[in-house]
Amino acid sequence: MLSESLIKEFKTIVGDENVFDNEADRQCYSYDSAVLDAVVPALVVRPTETTQIGQVVKLCNENGLPITVRGAGTNLSGGTIPDPRDGVVVLTNGLTKILEINEQDLYAVVQPGVVTAKFAAEVAKRGLFYPPDPGSQAVSTIAGNVAENAGGLRGLKYGVTKDYVMGIEFYDVNGGLVKTGSRTVKCVTGYNLAGLMAASEGTLGVFSEIILKLVPPPRASKAMMAVFDDINKASEAVAGIIAAHVVPCTLEFMDQASIRYVEDYTKAGLPVHAEAILLIEVDGHPGQVEDDAARVEQVLKSTGAEIQVAKDAEEKFKLWEARRNALPALARAKPTTVLEDATVPRSQIPAMVKAINDIAAKYQINIGTFGHAGDGNLHPTILCDRRDKKEFERVEHAVDEIFDVALSLKGTLSGEHGIGMAKSKWMEKETSRATIDFSLNMKRAIDPNNILNPGKIIGG
Amino acid sequence: MLSESLIKEFKTIVGDENVFDNEADRQCYSYDSAVLDAVVPALVVRPTETTQIGQVVKLCNENGLPITVRGAGTNLSGGTIPDPRDGVVVLTNGLTKILEINEQDLYAVVQPGVVTAKFAAEVAKRGLFYPPDPGSQAVSTIAGNVAENAGGLRGLKYGVTKDYVMGIEFYDVNGGLVKTGSRTVKCVTGYNLAGLMAASEGTLGVFSEIILKLVPPPRASKAMMAVFDDINKASEAVAGIIAAHVVPCTLEFMDQASIRYVEDYTKAGLPVHAEAILLIEVDGHPGQVEDDAARVEQVLKSTGAEIQVAKDAEEKFKLWEARRNALPALARAKPTTVLEDATVPRSQIPAMVKAINDIAAKYQINIGTFGHAGDGNLHPTILCDRRDKKEFERVEHAVDEIFDVALSLKGTLSGEHGIGMAKSKWMEKETSRATIDFSLNMKRAIDPNNILNPGKIIGG
Repeated sequence: MLSESLIKEFKTIVGDENVFDNEADRQCYSYDSAVLDAVVPALVVRPTETTQIGQVVKLCNENGLPITVRGAGTNLSGGTIPDPRDGVVVLTNGLTKILEINEQDLYAVVQPGVVTAKFAAEVAKRGLFYPPDPGSQAVSTIAGNVAENAGGLRGLKYGVTKDYVMGIEFYDVNGGLVKTGSRTVKCVTGYNLAGLMAASEGTLGVFSEIILKLVPPPRASKAMMAVFDDINKASEAVAGIIAAHVVPCTLEFMDQASIRYVEDYTKAGLPVHAEAILLIEVDGHPGQVEDDAARVEQVLKSTGAEIQVAKDAEEKFKLWEARRNALPALARAKPTTVLEDATVPRSQIPAMVKAINDIAAKYQINIGTFGHAGDGNLHPTILCDRRDKKEFERVEHAVDEIFDVALSLKGTLSGEHGIGMAKSKWMEKETSRATIDFSLNMKRAIDPNNILNPGKIIGG
Repeated sequence: MLSESLIKEFKTIVGDENVFDNEADRQCYSYDSAVLDAVVPALVVRPTETTQIGQVVKLCNENGLPITVRGAGTNLSGGTIPDPRDGVVVLTNGLTKILEINEQDLYAVVQPGVVTAKFAAEVAKRGLFYPPDPGSQAVSTIAGNVAENAGGLRGLKYGVTKDYVMGIEFYDVNGGLVKTGSRTVKCVTGYNLAGLMAASEGTLGVFSEIILKLVPPPRASKAMMAVFDDINKASEAVAGIIAAHVVPCTLEFMDQASIRYVEDYTKAGLPVHAEAILLIEVDGHPGQVEDDAARVEQVLKSTGAEIQVAKDAEEKFKLWEARRNALPALARAKPTTVLEDATVPRSQIPAMVKAINDIAAKYQINIGTFGHAGDGNLHPTILCDRRDKKEFERVEHAVDEIFDVALSLKGTLSGEHGIGMAKSKWMEKETSRATIDFSLNMKRAIDPNNILNPGKIIGG
């Protein structure tokens, strides 16, 4: 419980109407999208000017109050779950200004709480393109995307959020404003703190302004669905497309379980008898699109796939809508959805898909797998009921084994969902004790009172 | 002076033949390519296995010996100048193995001392492409490129070195091996330390292994030279090309002084009466190359330029050879060459070019300007004689003003040459006191004895 006088200090900074201390309001910010216990924060604060962020951080630091910054709470690894010791949730939904879209110099400057899809739409209106498109883009925020280094469907060709971060201004624990990066495409002035802040999950500073790179949009695109009666052929086709030196903008995989749940949910006309499908889009110059599509079709045919090319924008939209509904469709099936994102080098997709299915059989659990196959970034999604303790134990063993397989294939624990609270215990397995110590050391120097989203990424 | 027993310990780690303590050898590693005083190191050590790096770092840390890691010494900001207090230079030219080129998964793993151009050539042999091409690529090393986040001619379309770093293994000051990043294209496991290490100028750890991203090569390209009788028209054409949403792979600028010195040096047939030239290359799918070239030519014609398209590979090579010789050609003119790389948003190139010429006139100094105009990254090159104290004072004032102008145009102190020892005093002007404190704080935690390339980037 925070004292009345302390709450008053927060009110002085952000205004009475932007401090929420009643139980019902605080409950709303006690959880995110990960399968973890909710923690009700002591206070929720909503800055409406960026300078207020610095004052809020300073006040929290002086009083040892842990801060968890929250965009839309779409985090999948517990990154936005508050700290149990008088945690303060800082909302960014009062900071939603797009400050600049520079059409000549191909960059934009935004406040932290700008919603990703809204931003991308504004950019598109000016004839430009902001490629990162995490599954949560309709509600998630730019600062949340940067803090998690969010991926998305277009990662294969266009990269992930950090590849579009040119600069960040953020407040340190003392309320000092740190400026890193630039409006220029090249900048080596000082440490690459913008690079460090990307994927730091709110543990090193609180963002107040972000400079993002924009690109000219592709002039053409072509989407298709490939239907397989053998799941191994589908995963071989993924490796084959990359090996043919085609880089589609999107190359997505869905297994039979995912297809059936999605079809049941969306009635999109997906082939429910297929063992797997690939959803593929190539984009770029019209000539390149034709060539790339032809090469992709060649690889698909050699694996015996049946190919359906989207005839128009509507058909294309339907394909991607189906894919974007994979998670909500699977999540309807059972009370608990454990969504993983262990990632492997792309050529290892066949081995990874096989291993996931073997693990599902071994532990008698229900796994639907979909995801960004072109990035080696699958989302094995375990459908279960957390209240069934025996089943959930088997789920935890299965997750352990999925990570072990990914690492044995030279992969990684997390491609895009973050470590958060959910995966820090596995970190040392992938990296080393020295890596954890180096990170802890750095974190302690930057945040000596451990108030910035404590317990995330490196535990502690 | 180091004690005999300490020198013996280094010999035990790397072998007698890889420890150099005589004056003549040490002199060779006392300077780099910046205009700064030479500092002779106390010892030069050459590991030939990566595990030796950790042992060398640990020994240095235990004895408070400052380490400066040196690839080819092409650094332009003093980043490889040793520390005067018993500095140890660690050479990477005994660690030159390309450990893996993975054609299916589009990555490579290399030791720190691999020469960039050699690596790019090996990659090309496998039908793949490593785009970063700093001017020094014929001799500079991958680890040096990463430590400085080196740019190059292709930065405009393909980005800079950090955009190709997927993972790094490095030794911390205790000799612990830190592993960051992955062989996967997406990875958010732990802090983005690979991002932090890029551009850290050897101050946070010593690299032992680097994972680099590769891409499929462009299928076609077209190069041309545009000749201008008005320098302002040339810089307007640069802004016009970007505004037309064409992203050439290379878009280089040379003013009359540069043209004349290069022509004198190379006899490449450059137009010595032109006020400026642009050298432009577009690449990609053949259809895109044709379209982009046509759009570029349209912009150029509208500014009144005379256009010469390279007819074949030989003519293209000649163009780039001329550009690559700009620095050596200018450097022949006078005893001292002060090469700057202040960078501005691309649309500000006309203002920057004008400002540089005004500054040259004001201080009566000789500046030749060339560089990566498409990135907003010009290289105003001051030709002078450092022994002429009065002139050099004017040069220093001019450099000050160049930085001021770049910052006033929302640019940055350094686009690609690094801060090193040369520019740390200007850092606060661009960033903030909090930025410097944040950086110093982090550095002190990671390197409490300040042995990792002390005095670079953040001073101290």
